[in-house]
Amino acid sequence: MKESSPVPDGVCRSEVECREQARSNLPEIAERIIDHCENSPCYTHIDSEPIPSEGFVADIIDMFRELLFPGYFTREKLDPVNLRYSLGQTVSKLFDLLADLITHNIRHDCLRYHQSCSGCESRGHSIALEVMNAIPDIRQVLASDVRAAFEGDPAAKSHDEVIFSYPGIYAISVHRVAHRLYELEVPMLPRIMSEHAHSITGIDIHPGATIGGRFVIDHGTGVVIGETTEIGNNVRIYQGVTLGALSLPKDAGELLRGKKRHPTIEDDVIIYSGATVLGGDTLIGARSVVGGSVWLTESIPPDTTVMMEMPRLIIKDARRKAGS
Amino acid sequence: MKESSPVPDGVCRSEVECREQARSNLPEIAERIIDHCENSPCYTHIDSEPIPSEGFVADIIDMFRELLFPGYFTREKLDPVNLRYSLGQTVSKLFDLLADLITHNIRHDCLRYHQSCSGCESRGHSIALEVMNAIPDIRQVLASDVRAAFEGDPAAKSHDEVIFSYPGIYAISVHRVAHRLYELEVPMLPRIMSEHAHSITGIDIHPGATIGGRFVIDHGTGVVIGETTEIGNNVRIYQGVTLGALSLPKDAGELLRGKKRHPTIEDDVIIYSGATVLGGDTLIGARSVVGGSVWLTESIPPDTTVMMEMPRLIIKDARRKAGS
Amino acid sequence: MKESSPVPDGVCRSEVECREQARSNLPEIAERIIDHCENSPCYTHIDSEPIPSEGFVADIIDMFRELLFPGYFTREKLDPVNLRYSLGQTVSKLFDLLADLITHNIRHDCLRYHQSCSGCESRGHSIALEVMNAIPDIRQVLASDVRAAFEGDPAAKSHDEVIFSYPGIYAISVHRVAHRLYELEVPMLPRIMSEHAHSITGIDIHPGATIGGRFVIDHGTGVVIGETTEIGNNVRIYQGVTLGALSLPKDAGELLRGKKRHPTIEDDVIIYSGATVLGGDTLIGARSVVGGSVWLTESIPPDTTVMMEMPRLIIKDARRKAGS
Repeated sequence: MKESSPVPDGVCRSEVECREQARSNLPEIAERIIDHCENSPCYTHIDSEPIPSEGFVADIIDMFRELLFPGYFTREKLDPVNLRYSLGQTVSKLFDLLADLITHNIRHDCLRYHQSCSGCESRGHSIALEVMNAIPDIRQVLASDVRAAFEGDPAAKSHDEVIFSYPGIYAISVHRVAHRLYELEVPMLPRIMSEHAHSITGIDIHPGATIGGRFVIDHGTGVVIGETTEIGNNVRIYQGVTLGALSLPKDAGELLRGKKRHPTIEDDVIIYSGATVLGGDTLIGARSVVGGSVWLTESIPPDTTVMMEMPRLIIKDARRKAGS
Repeated sequence: MKESSPVPDGVCRSEVECREQARSNLPEIAERIIDHCENSPCYTHIDSEPIPSEGFVADIIDMFRELLFPGYFTREKLDPVNLRYSLGQTVSKLFDLLADLITHNIRHDCLRYHQSCSGCESRGHSIALEVMNAIPDIRQVLASDVRAAFEGDPAAKSHDEVIFSYPGIYAISVHRVAHRLYELEVPMLPRIMSEHAHSITGIDIHPGATIGGRFVIDHGTGVVIGETTEIGNNVRIYQGVTLGALSLPKDAGELLRGKKRHPTIEDDVIIYSGATVLGGDTLIGARSVVGGSVWLTESIPPDTTVMMEMPRLIIKDARRKAGS
Repeated sequence: MKESSPVPDGVCRSEVECREQARSNLPEIAERIIDHCENSPCYTHIDSEPIPSEGFVADIIDMFRELLFPGYFTREKLDPVNLRYSLGQTVSKLFDLLADLITHNIRHDCLRYHQSCSGCESRGHSIALEVMNAIPDIRQVLASDVRAAFEGDPAAKSHDEVIFSYPGIYAISVHRVAHRLYELEVPMLPRIMSEHAHSITGIDIHPGATIGGRFVIDHGTGVVIGETTEIGNNVRIYQGVTLGALSLPKDAGELLRGKKRHPTIEDDVIIYSGATVLGGDTLIGARSVVGGSVWLTESIPPDTTVMMEMPRLIIKDARRKAGS
């Protein structure tokens, strides 16, 4: 097999000749991309159902948002007459796309892991219908999220501003749909959706997490909520909060799959920015407040405030070296 | 009202029949999306002025960046002749879009909150013109930001690299425009713009914040700068810095709206990564340095260095459990 | 020069007249955008090679990902026959775009800094070919990253899910290509690519960083890895980890350019969320574990666990003020 061989400078006599000379190496490179890994484990997704691209998932999410907040994310002005028409169209279009997408994802895993694949398509329709059916209820929970965000934030000018621009609302909207797909055991799609929301908002909610109503994430960048987290009603968290797992032995992936590894947060809890709560047995009791940057690996009872004893500050003349 | 009813497996005899059977539920679902919330408060944006989508706002931001750094974000090569032509076109196009967008946003709030809406359109033109008029000055301030970023960063290879690729420059460019719109009391649009920048950069600057020249945000992910923050000249902050509000009672939204809730940072201050400065009465004096991870809720005088007394580190053999 | 002059309300008698009146100011604004900075240093990118837009770079990255994980990010289903055809096409298309892009970037710096520019184009071809040639090896290293991510994460359902949706895999894929371009001394492009990945994932890896195989970034938002960082094999880091430089005097940019300023991480190290490791002389010995939120500016020997002594928690009744 040819070694890496850039065109030696000066050998080609014109730009055109140089380019052609360089291009002559391409077929061999393409072969090596395919063959190089034949005796070692690389990843090539061959003879598999294609999984729709991230851009496609973004379209699906946009349609869900159109239905969850009708009239907010459409270009045309909706009135009581065209509302039904516009919504009906989106419902129909989203169902078709979603049914196909779910079918693809199910069939992908069937083909990949050599399981039986009969009925993939009708499972796709059936699950898509379940999810569409859930939209009216998700709409009501999201409305409670919007009200809670508005009530607690002095910078919010209107409910509309919250819906149009708050990343926390975006993230929880996507989560409430992705969580339904996760419950219905659709492979991959829920996680691709949640990672899209993560990319847009910096908020990383695993689709497995269970989250009650009136949930508020303020600012949100850096928030991580793990797969087996359970969150009650009326909980408010700030940027940089981690609800995560305790440290794992190196081979923990296999051992802990499916186990409860992330904390439980009861109703009416507030967790301030940068706080970390870890472990599947850790429970934050109702109405408790976890202060900024607190690191918790044990449960606290209801009605508790936990704050970090502030490290002593060292204060000196600024013209010396900062050391940080 | 019909309950959630997925197609029972096996009842339909072909894929086509299954799909049709599932689809037959869609009109009822569309009705429920509309009606389900009629007796409880959901959010439907009906009979309201449509607010342009996030994608549309992204286009507006791109045009502003073309004018703020002419020639950097255009595909064609600009020379002294076509510069005037290209710029003139962008000025004209941006004005039209911006005037429409501002008019929409103003009219939206008029219709929504039953205020008088006469003159919305001419207010739209007038404000758009004010903002366009501000571009030359914003250009100069941004140039000072670029120089400060370059001078303080050993990884910066050229001023061009800073303009092309630094997320801090993106965020402060959008902020300086959004802040002008905020001052002119345009509803929603400034916040939608700042959230777009937040999504792109992980830097969350409320359009209300007042920020001086030579402002540098390095790396920037997780930075939060609240609505009533005031920042002087030549200030440098790092990733994960919060300039925020003190904790609020649950119903604080209404009480504190419009009050000074976020800190004041004087000239020549440096705030290292992960530091948190909270409260409307908190003032960081000129030339002070706030060390990494410091948590401050009180003022410090000029020329002060504040560092955290490092928590004692516990050092042991790594083959035991990490506990973190 | 005319002052900022919004249309006075009431002077225009119709919307059309108002708009025209406002528009009449635009040519003068365009002139001021160009001229305002003539006597002070603004940034206009004139008579320079245009640098392709961020969107264009996104396309290049998508093509690299198609080649690094064939079949994963294509819409059509690949089988052993069309795999060669599809891949060959992408190789050829990517080479052409990449060669042009590299040539543009090299020529940009030549024109900008008045260096000799002969052979820019053949250097562009030669470097593009080197990078294409590196893809098979990058593919193997990335496969080791995917396996390490899967093995250590109980939430991962399959290797495919990791490839399709993990932001850490996205970031390290882009980094491994951008690092090759950085080594070949292509200006700007590597940094624009890494900032694109930063924007998508919240993970900020400077293209200069050297990173071994089986590298895992979990969640990742807020991670910063500086230009002269060196990371061994089988290292795992979590969200919010900074591998950075010590604080700098204000004019450090020029003095420290090119010097080793960021830490060295040896094989098999784990660094938990929010930890900060700073300084070019700081070395984390093999198999060590750095606990969450630890702040390190000194080296630690191999097989060491470093944890923060937890600040004492203050626990009280939650109905008092939270103070955070």
